Amino acid sequence: NHVIVCGFGRNGRQASLELLDHGEQVVVIDSKESSIEKIRMVPELLFIQGDATLEEVLTSANILNAKALITAIPDDAANVYVCLTARELSPGIRIISRSSKLQSDNKLKRAGANNVIMPDLLGGKQMAKLVAQPDVIEFLDKILLQSIKGVKLIEVSCSNLANCFVGKSILDLNVRNVSGANIIGLKDDEGNYIYNPSPDIILDQKFQLFVLGDSEQLARLNKLLNTGKLTR
Amino acid sequence: NHVIVCGFGRNGRQASLELLDHGEQVVVIDSKESSIEKIRMVPELLFIQGDATLEEVLTSANILNAKALITAIPDDAANVYVCLTARELSPGIRIISRSSKLQSDNKLKRAGANNVIMPDLLGGKQMAKLVAQPDVIEFLDKILLQSIKGVKLIEVSCSNLANCFVGKSILDLNVRNVSGANIIGLKDDEGNYIYNPSPDIILDQKFQLFVLGDSEQLARLNKLLNTGKLTR
Ligand SMILES: [Ca+2]
Ligand SMILES: [Ca+2]
Repeated sequence: NHVIVCGFGRNGRQASLELLDHGEQVVVIDSKESSIEKIRMVPELLFIQGDATLEEVLTSANILNAKALITAIPDDAANVYVCLTARELSPGIRIISRSSKLQSDNKLKRAGANNVIMPDLLGGKQMAKLVAQPDVIEFLDKILLQSIKGVKLIEVSCSNLANCFVGKSILDLNVRNVSGANIIGLKDDEGNYIYNPSPDIILDQKFQLFVLGDSEQLARLNKLLNTGKLTR
Repeated sequence: NHVIVCGFGRNGRQASLELLDHGEQVVVIDSKESSIEKIRMVPELLFIQGDATLEEVLTSANILNAKALITAIPDDAANVYVCLTARELSPGIRIISRSSKLQSDNKLKRAGANNVIMPDLLGGKQMAKLVAQPDVIEFLDKILLQSIKGVKLIEVSCSNLANCFVGKSILDLNVRNVSGANIIGLKDDEGNYIYNPSPDIILDQKFQLFVLGDSEQLARLNKLLNTGKLTR
């Protein structure tokens, strides 16, 4: 039940350290001697020196028992290859890929990535918006850092949707009025992101909802979704 | 009407290049010889070799005619000092500061920064959330990159609020039903960020609203706010 991190560059290293911090067991794969030296400086990390695009290397990292694989290689083509190999070996694993180009997003997803993250693009975009719309950047930072007291953006799975809501619309949930939480987006069963989902969208147990709210509001929403009932 | 960038490290360099890309005139201040060499490699950049914490250096960068100053020095104490000096010299300038520590946020704001941006913290936080809530990260990335067709998160100033809304509440605006756009946050007159602003908050011309919507929805919202009228 460990996490495999492929590539120990700046992003892979940061991911590994944060995962350790959160109590995860981490197995790093990298072929470069210089990376291995850096990995050795963190005694908690397990590692394999090898090429993560090779089946035998992923197998020796025990991919069949891993809960997630992060591929953070600076070369998007290599990440695509890792995704394909990993998905073939372990159909159910969560695969998260770093991408350096916006155009790689769909390719990586078709290759098997559940999520594609673009840290460098993000930095550039942030900086570009600084002068024109700094408040938007700061607002998004604060959401991510959750530094506004109590309020979070979380994802809520609809997999336990109460029977009374099956076939009903978002409007029928009446989330904002009943719970105070705000559904600002959803990810549908095909992996598409939808902002401000229209109230007439029919709920599906495969949806992930993105909900903004404080702990109390989010608890009310979860109760509403899973039981169909709510006592204020 | 130029932008001053203090510090030409990784963040300052990226900010400068993006600003040039957006047609801004940029004056960089840095004291290190190694930074000056890097600045010289971008012929469009104007620069001053000197210490940005000194009044005379900011004055020679013509701060009185600048529209914004970005201080991206790796040392938060130096950024605080630049903010204080810049705010003293130019009470109306927009000041954006980089920060490497969450605790510096309030200090930088008290020193005069309008906005505080934390790129490194953000990277770490992204990575930490990858395994537990990757969809949230990807969703926020997509908002920032605006890669979902048509939908944007923008800030809308209330400075031109129609007379009919002065003293009225957010509920009175009826934004979601009338425009389809979604107010997910606001920055109040004291610079505090509020998520999911409660419908009974009274509108103030000093508010900035954070609104999620497509171009059509946002145009409707702007018309609503500024004229009080709306034809669907
Ligand atoms: Ca603003
Ligand atoms: Ca998820």
